[in-house]
Amino acid sequence: MNFDLVIRNGTVVTASDIWESCDIGIKDGIIVAVGPRLPATAGVQVIDAEGAFITPGGVDCHVHLSQVYEAAVDEIDRSVITNGVIPDLENYVSDTYDTGTRSAVAGGTTTVVTFASQMKKDESIIPVIEDYHKLAKDQSYCDYAFHVIITNPTPQIVEEEFPRMVDEYGITSVKLYMTYKPMRLRDYQILDVMYSARKLGITTMVHAENTDIIDWMTRHLEEKLMTQPYHHGTSRPPIVEAEATNRAICLAELMDTPILLVHISGGPATKHIRDAQTRLLPIYGETCPQYMFLLADSMRKGDFEGAKCVCSPPIREDKSDQDAIWTGIKNGTFTIVSSDHAPSKYEHPHGKKRGLQHGNLPHGKFRFIPNGLPGVETRVPLLFSGGVLSGRISPQKFVEVTSTNPAKLYGLKKKGCIGPGFDADIVIWYPQATFQPFNLTNEMLHHAIDYTPFEGIEFKNWPRYTIIRGKVVFSHGEVVGEMGYGQFILREKSLLPGPRDVWLSEWSP
Amino acid sequence: MNFDLVIRNGTVVTASDIWESCDIGIKDGIIVAVGPRLPATAGVQVIDAEGAFITPGGVDCHVHLSQVYEAAVDEIDRSVITNGVIPDLENYVSDTYDTGTRSAVAGGTTTVVTFASQMKKDESIIPVIEDYHKLAKDQSYCDYAFHVIITNPTPQIVEEEFPRMVDEYGITSVKLYMTYKPMRLRDYQILDVMYSARKLGITTMVHAENTDIIDWMTRHLEEKLMTQPYHHGTSRPPIVEAEATNRAICLAELMDTPILLVHISGGPATKHIRDAQTRLLPIYGETCPQYMFLLADSMRKGDFEGAKCVCSPPIREDKSDQDAIWTGIKNGTFTIVSSDHAPSKYEHPHGKKRGLQHGNLPHGKFRFIPNGLPGVETRVPLLFSGGVLSGRISPQKFVEVTSTNPAKLYGLKKKGCIGPGFDADIVIWYPQATFQPFNLTNEMLHHAIDYTPFEGIEFKNWPRYTIIRGKVVFSHGEVVGEMGYGQFILREKSLLPGPRDVWLSEWSP
Amino acid sequence: MNFDLVIRNGTVVTASDIWESCDIGIKDGIIVAVGPRLPATAGVQVIDAEGAFITPGGVDCHVHLSQVYEAAVDEIDRSVITNGVIPDLENYVSDTYDTGTRSAVAGGTTTVVTFASQMKKDESIIPVIEDYHKLAKDQSYCDYAFHVIITNPTPQIVEEEFPRMVDEYGITSVKLYMTYKPMRLRDYQILDVMYSARKLGITTMVHAENTDIIDWMTRHLEEKLMTQPYHHGTSRPPIVEAEATNRAICLAELMDTPILLVHISGGPATKHIRDAQTRLLPIYGETCPQYMFLLADSMRKGDFEGAKCVCSPPIREDKSDQDAIWTGIKNGTFTIVSSDHAPSKYEHPHGKKRGLQHGNLPHGKFRFIPNGLPGVETRVPLLFSGGVLSGRISPQKFVEVTSTNPAKLYGLKKKGCIGPGFDADIVIWYPQATFQPFNLTNEMLHHAIDYTPFEGIEFKNWPRYTIIRGKVVFSHGEVVGEMGYGQFILREKSLLPGPRDVWLSEWSP
Amino acid sequence: MNFDLVIRNGTVVTASDIWESCDIGIKDGIIVAVGPRLPATAGVQVIDAEGAFITPGGVDCHVHLSQVYEAAVDEIDRSVITNGVIPDLENYVSDTYDTGTRSAVAGGTTTVVTFASQMKKDESIIPVIEDYHKLAKDQSYCDYAFHVIITNPTPQIVEEEFPRMVDEYGITSVKLYMTYKPMRLRDYQILDVMYSARKLGITTMVHAENTDIIDWMTRHLEEKLMTQPYHHGTSRPPIVEAEATNRAICLAELMDTPILLVHISGGPATKHIRDAQTRLLPIYGETCPQYMFLLADSMRKGDFEGAKCVCSPPIREDKSDQDAIWTGIKNGTFTIVSSDHAPSKYEHPHGKKRGLQHGNLPHGKFRFIPNGLPGVETRVPLLFSGGVLSGRISPQKFVEVTSTNPAKLYGLKKKGCIGPGFDADIVIWYPQATFQPFNLTNEMLHHAIDYTPFEGIEFKNWPRYTIIRGKVVFSHGEVVGEMGYGQFILREKSLLPGPRDVWLSEWSP
Repeated sequence: MNFDLVIRNGTVVTASDIWESCDIGIKDGIIVAVGPRLPATAGVQVIDAEGAFITPGGVDCHVHLSQVYEAAVDEIDRSVITNGVIPDLENYVSDTYDTGTRSAVAGGTTTVVTFASQMKKDESIIPVIEDYHKLAKDQSYCDYAFHVIITNPTPQIVEEEFPRMVDEYGITSVKLYMTYKPMRLRDYQILDVMYSARKLGITTMVHAENTDIIDWMTRHLEEKLMTQPYHHGTSRPPIVEAEATNRAICLAELMDTPILLVHISGGPATKHIRDAQTRLLPIYGETCPQYMFLLADSMRKGDFEGAKCVCSPPIREDKSDQDAIWTGIKNGTFTIVSSDHAPSKYEHPHGKKRGLQHGNLPHGKFRFIPNGLPGVETRVPLLFSGGVLSGRISPQKFVEVTSTNPAKLYGLKKKGCIGPGFDADIVIWYPQATFQPFNLTNEMLHHAIDYTPFEGIEFKNWPRYTIIRGKVVFSHGEVVGEMGYGQFILREKSLLPGPRDVWLSEWSP
Repeated sequence: MNFDLVIRNGTVVTASDIWESCDIGIKDGIIVAVGPRLPATAGVQVIDAEGAFITPGGVDCHVHLSQVYEAAVDEIDRSVITNGVIPDLENYVSDTYDTGTRSAVAGGTTTVVTFASQMKKDESIIPVIEDYHKLAKDQSYCDYAFHVIITNPTPQIVEEEFPRMVDEYGITSVKLYMTYKPMRLRDYQILDVMYSARKLGITTMVHAENTDIIDWMTRHLEEKLMTQPYHHGTSRPPIVEAEATNRAICLAELMDTPILLVHISGGPATKHIRDAQTRLLPIYGETCPQYMFLLADSMRKGDFEGAKCVCSPPIREDKSDQDAIWTGIKNGTFTIVSSDHAPSKYEHPHGKKRGLQHGNLPHGKFRFIPNGLPGVETRVPLLFSGGVLSGRISPQKFVEVTSTNPAKLYGLKKKGCIGPGFDADIVIWYPQATFQPFNLTNEMLHHAIDYTPFEGIEFKNWPRYTIIRGKVVFSHGEVVGEMGYGQFILREKSLLPGPRDVWLSEWSP
Repeated sequence: MNFDLVIRNGTVVTASDIWESCDIGIKDGIIVAVGPRLPATAGVQVIDAEGAFITPGGVDCHVHLSQVYEAAVDEIDRSVITNGVIPDLENYVSDTYDTGTRSAVAGGTTTVVTFASQMKKDESIIPVIEDYHKLAKDQSYCDYAFHVIITNPTPQIVEEEFPRMVDEYGITSVKLYMTYKPMRLRDYQILDVMYSARKLGITTMVHAENTDIIDWMTRHLEEKLMTQPYHHGTSRPPIVEAEATNRAICLAELMDTPILLVHISGGPATKHIRDAQTRLLPIYGETCPQYMFLLADSMRKGDFEGAKCVCSPPIREDKSDQDAIWTGIKNGTFTIVSSDHAPSKYEHPHGKKRGLQHGNLPHGKFRFIPNGLPGVETRVPLLFSGGVLSGRISPQKFVEVTSTNPAKLYGLKKKGCIGPGFDADIVIWYPQATFQPFNLTNEMLHHAIDYTPFEGIEFKNWPRYTIIRGKVVFSHGEVVGEMGYGQFILREKSLLPGPRDVWLSEWSP
Repeated sequence: MNFDLVIRNGTVVTASDIWESCDIGIKDGIIVAVGPRLPATAGVQVIDAEGAFITPGGVDCHVHLSQVYEAAVDEIDRSVITNGVIPDLENYVSDTYDTGTRSAVAGGTTTVVTFASQMKKDESIIPVIEDYHKLAKDQSYCDYAFHVIITNPTPQIVEEEFPRMVDEYGITSVKLYMTYKPMRLRDYQILDVMYSARKLGITTMVHAENTDIIDWMTRHLEEKLMTQPYHHGTSRPPIVEAEATNRAICLAELMDTPILLVHISGGPATKHIRDAQTRLLPIYGETCPQYMFLLADSMRKGDFEGAKCVCSPPIREDKSDQDAIWTGIKNGTFTIVSSDHAPSKYEHPHGKKRGLQHGNLPHGKFRFIPNGLPGVETRVPLLFSGGVLSGRISPQKFVEVTSTNPAKLYGLKKKGCIGPGFDADIVIWYPQATFQPFNLTNEMLHHAIDYTPFEGIEFKNWPRYTIIRGKVVFSHGEVVGEMGYGQFILREKSLLPGPRDVWLSEWSP
């Protein structure tokens, strides 16, 4: 029993169990023993948890880093990137792999799955994957993996490149959009993607909103000059998400293939997912802290500040939707909680304030506000403080949705669990009695973004240590890890239940 | 009390009541008295019903007449029509207004609502309506009205022509397709139509099938050479209809406007409609006799005969779907039962057999089979014989779904009821005791089509007299009315519940 | 065409249709003709409706008359009644057949179905029926029929007397209680009743509340001194009704027999009924005006006045329950709307105020308040004014739930319809333009009760004439009919859909 | 790191995770380390798992041992028991603590929760608990705890004894029956129990069947001589369970207290539980292997052999019910799977054959067949072989429902998990490759019963070692533990989510 690091005396939590007064022995970055009073010979690093909670490092599987601002998408040329150096950095969202993953570890997240995003003009996804490798290589503070965003599923891509993506590049999930003009796929294209996904064991992530309704509503709201940030939400009532969610589930049922509905925000969509799960369809649900802790009023802040809370689907107006999200976490409808970290600055030529500048109207036009919120650093502490410590969810449920299930769903086989053989990715919290609650300000965060939508929220605890593969990377408020320590992870297929081999007609692949 | 015609001694049925031993007095084509022993002076025509059922004449609001075969749609030039004479008749479906309405009256239908169908290239619908008037004028044996099929809802059409359509042309309903390449609208266009419909009190009819799934399945079935007529059904499992039905309901809920889902065929779509009605959304449902009396096995007949039963949505495979349709009629989910009379011949260059000829395969390709079945003549007798006389539905329910509700839904204010002030459109049945049941053969029918999907089905009664505005037009198996007797009807707005003034966000029209 | 009475120029409404400018010809108490401009020879009585609505006379199938105050049930001896004279009248509820039916006709109701109520000690129901005949004979202003309340379903009663009840006494419905100690049946007994009902075609009315919950809550509320009238509602939250409703439906499904759930008050029970109807079980629902127009706050009135609104199930607290009732009327869940006229006086030894006197507490005990409200006179005008004239329901729906469906459900074959052959039971309303809305006070009513729960509510119309079998019994605010004019009606079996012959196991009767 | 026992090289499964190539270090009966290659000094016992699955010992929380045959319940006098010696042993069910727990450990179960059963005549439950302690003490091969069955919840018991039961006797769950004449509680009594349970944190187990329906059906089946064992099922169609399940949930919702519905057998009851869980009510579900692996045909076996499969609720006829049970396990509706081990012999004066002897009919009367099946030994292997190895459920789900959840639900804080600090209760399976599947015969089992309902079923694995608190008690088919080794466990309150503090009216405890 020779350890590199022993963590002493924690209240260790897994997705199902709690082990009190427990030590963790780590060797070569791997957890090799758990149990009370593990031996530590001289020279072994020892951290005393002082009885505090110890949870698996956060696994955030919905993080946008180093993608291109939508407004700049036509100008971009990724071939000019070399070794993480991006000459036209202003075209990229304001968290690249360095600042984004620095922020992640400061919030207890040890693995992120980010996106390699095909542009419609990209005729192959292999170079796209390689471009993102260039963007991330030697830049990351935490471990990382890629999903591939498919915006143009040509036969070559789904038939020839998908197998390579899985086998050679270790990418076992793709994401697709049912909305956003530069991204969205028609149902026919979605079926093309799902058909290949079905055969290869790929999990398909779906951004489900009915794009035609959004476009129609946006046009008509603009005609009425209802264009303030708040009316971003008006343009996308919950039925927009619910309809597309039902449609995505129908397509997945037809193709008998697992999907994850990303960032679900409202009650009606949640019900569709629950109903599908009741029938054992392999339908998974994701939600995000913004839908658990914020309401649409946050988009009403004056002077265009509301733009800081513009994301899609929008943060909901009705408390009943927020309640439905919490209910869905508790009853198991939501498999995972991710941040959907989408790091648009407020003050930036392509940033949030663009909605004011391009609006031709004194109160701007929500259509020009880039979507999305930063949140990779706050996700884990929000769920711990506002979930576990508020009595809403158990410690095990917290671990399940922030770490274990994300790892299982996306085939991160060595992540998401404090147990023998798993990577020693660990968060040690402060002993509750000694922690002084504080109210968050953006200056406390480590991202490159000039605001946080969670400004002012009280935190009753925060990660004291973040440990990745046995190495402390964040300690008592300081990032102590090094850029480039993070490794790319080749993923396996999903460990959660997959197809049922049930077909809706005489056809099957 | 001076009558032109007195019908004696019937069992008169309305949508709610039955009056036994009842006479009906008619003057100037209008019902002016109901009651026992009405006086009849000399010279008054008297028909003795001998105690038999008397029901309001059938109102069939889903009848395709004189439309163009899809295969000929690019060649058509309607400007050459004069006074009902169609020089290129072979391009038109095989029932035009003369044969189609002759068939209608022979089956107890006294009013048909047919379609004036915009082609995508038609930049205005006004000429389209006028073309169809030319096609129908002086050709019809029964009264008729038009729906307008919208395939290209330009701003000019929905904003400027819809009001004229309602006010000048007496057309208060439009139909749109979510499938069929030459017809289908995207959700955005559907919203454009519904937006105008909402403001004008128009009822929108929706053919709800997910076109992308159909296209995708068709391609993949062809790759596997699964192209027999039967696989038309394989390409369109019930989820295809259910998904689109849910989507149409969502769009209608967003726009707070009444819609009718046409020709519903399966249980899952029926459930969506029922759920919407439970919530009081103004969602109406239509089904057709083919979904009540046939199963998909009818598409398996050898030598390509199965093509005769190819329609969309397809006749379903599972008895459970057929049961769900009957259940939906009984519990009120289906507002109306229509024929969807779509008169493609089997032996015709553009007809059903085209699927064999254009297939490049010995068993043909279902993709080339024109969709739809003839049924305008059989609808009323099928529901009476297979519904009322089989004990499945009450006489009142029969009247409700075949006559009263269609008239109310489409604003045919003087149709659909045996009562004072209504048009004397009446069916007198045979006294049950004297009727000899028979099995249908196509020769018995009066359409111009070379088959009936209901061949061989037993009928336990049949209309003995069909009367339109007080004139007998069908009697004891003979059409005795005259072509051209039928009048065009200017319609009012729907008499069934409409919008609720409930909006899903801060936007409203 | 020789009439006794002609009603001219009305807007005649049936459950499905409206006939404008319509006359009604009546001979020997029967409607013998409807139509415009009927001939009236000299000497024929003519009433000019002046274009106003004419609706079928109200059929109120839930009316308690001449029953015994619960507090007096042990003292009663019905053998002393002779010819409608009741020596110990103070033991009887304060509307007997004379005042109760006088009130009915003054509110447009032409037929009431009242209750012949077995007491547990009654070993036979035949004498009970005969006793109630004695109570009603020559006392009634309107036509009437009986339900039998079964509180002790002995084998003799269900096996031997039920057939006589149906065949000899023309009573085709029984009512049973799942609550109230002196009345309630256990599930086993309910099955005994339903078993016989199934075989004889009897409709079973069920008062569905879980009696154990009520008793338990009442005891515990009393321990906390929460005994004000308002807490009658606290003791019976909607789940009390919902549970028993579900149970009753289960028993009926097992026995495949039609039931009516009486006086449904809340959303959850309504949902159970709707779900059963969706599956085509012969489950019928009744609600009452108090659940449509009042909320529980009416029980909070000071000085024990709240007792006036104490009924069971209680008037609900949440607007959502009230909305659910209206929704259930509109979507067809509720087959009928009855008054549940339960005429306890406020100031009376056994009346409402008893709850104050027997309470031993300054604010009384709700347990001692006799349940129920008067409402036979207000039911029809409330639904017309607050339903039709407020735009909530159509005139046809009003007719359906207040007259046509009650008549059909309970086999009143000649009632409930303005049509040839039906009894000329008719309400003529005031022409809307000429009617001066007023706010109701109890003095305007014709019952023997010292309050109305609907005090102060505005009425936008009121029956101008009430006509029974061709005779005007109420005109312009005056009761002009005579006591004793009302006839007892031998009823037939229900005309609404009955058993489905579906069994849940290998057993069937 | 000083161990008493090291288990080497297993595939260790928890309710959420799998650790491959993992050792387990045990000291003083407790798991003190898990991890690869744990050190074992000389003298430490080592077991090589050879890569096989290692799962937490089974926790079977529904086991009837040493209860009295129902037929003998009036004759019993428990005061004569001394030190586990039962003079009138023939009155007791045929598995007492010795044979029952011997059978348990032979099937991989390490903890049983059995019942201390109040008889209606018992005015106190404290002596009942002590009697059962006498029956169990020094008799058990495995650890054990008690539920108390409440058949007569007097105020003294629920108010005064329940607190002692929890605090002094370590019993935190009670069971009640809604059926069986000698046991059943009325709803009022159930509320009394739940009220106290709510205040004390007790979990209430409910046997939910509508007793009145059962009694009624039984009487009527006997009248038709439908009394064969198979008709036990006829008397209790799924609606019997569904109704009572809904009622129990309503009572629990009213009282805001957690309940477990025991031995759920059919789809409709499962749906009620799922719906309640969707709403976050603390409603838990249990099912049993007989409902997962058998169908009602097993009751049709000739010569009264069908009696061997008579239990309540009955094994279901429809495959759809069996499927619903599996679905409920997979989607999480069923919290636990228990055996409901109810050890009636077939050949025994009070045993199964009694139904033949007391029937007065050549084919017996199912009413006299004692209910229940033996299954404590087969439960764990059936779920492992027929669940995990058949691909129906994951190893983690197996652990969750057979061990972890039962331990959590019933406050067995040191049971149900392979993790530091937990009792070393462990099952080591055979390496799959080396295991020879076999078909079960009753002779292979270790209970005292003369049949098994699972006769002939194939097992693809079986526990190779059963270990309790670090001691091997079963090895390679031999029970090697000692009677009396098993300890009584003082239980804590449930660790699963409890009350929500939501009340349905103004009343709360």
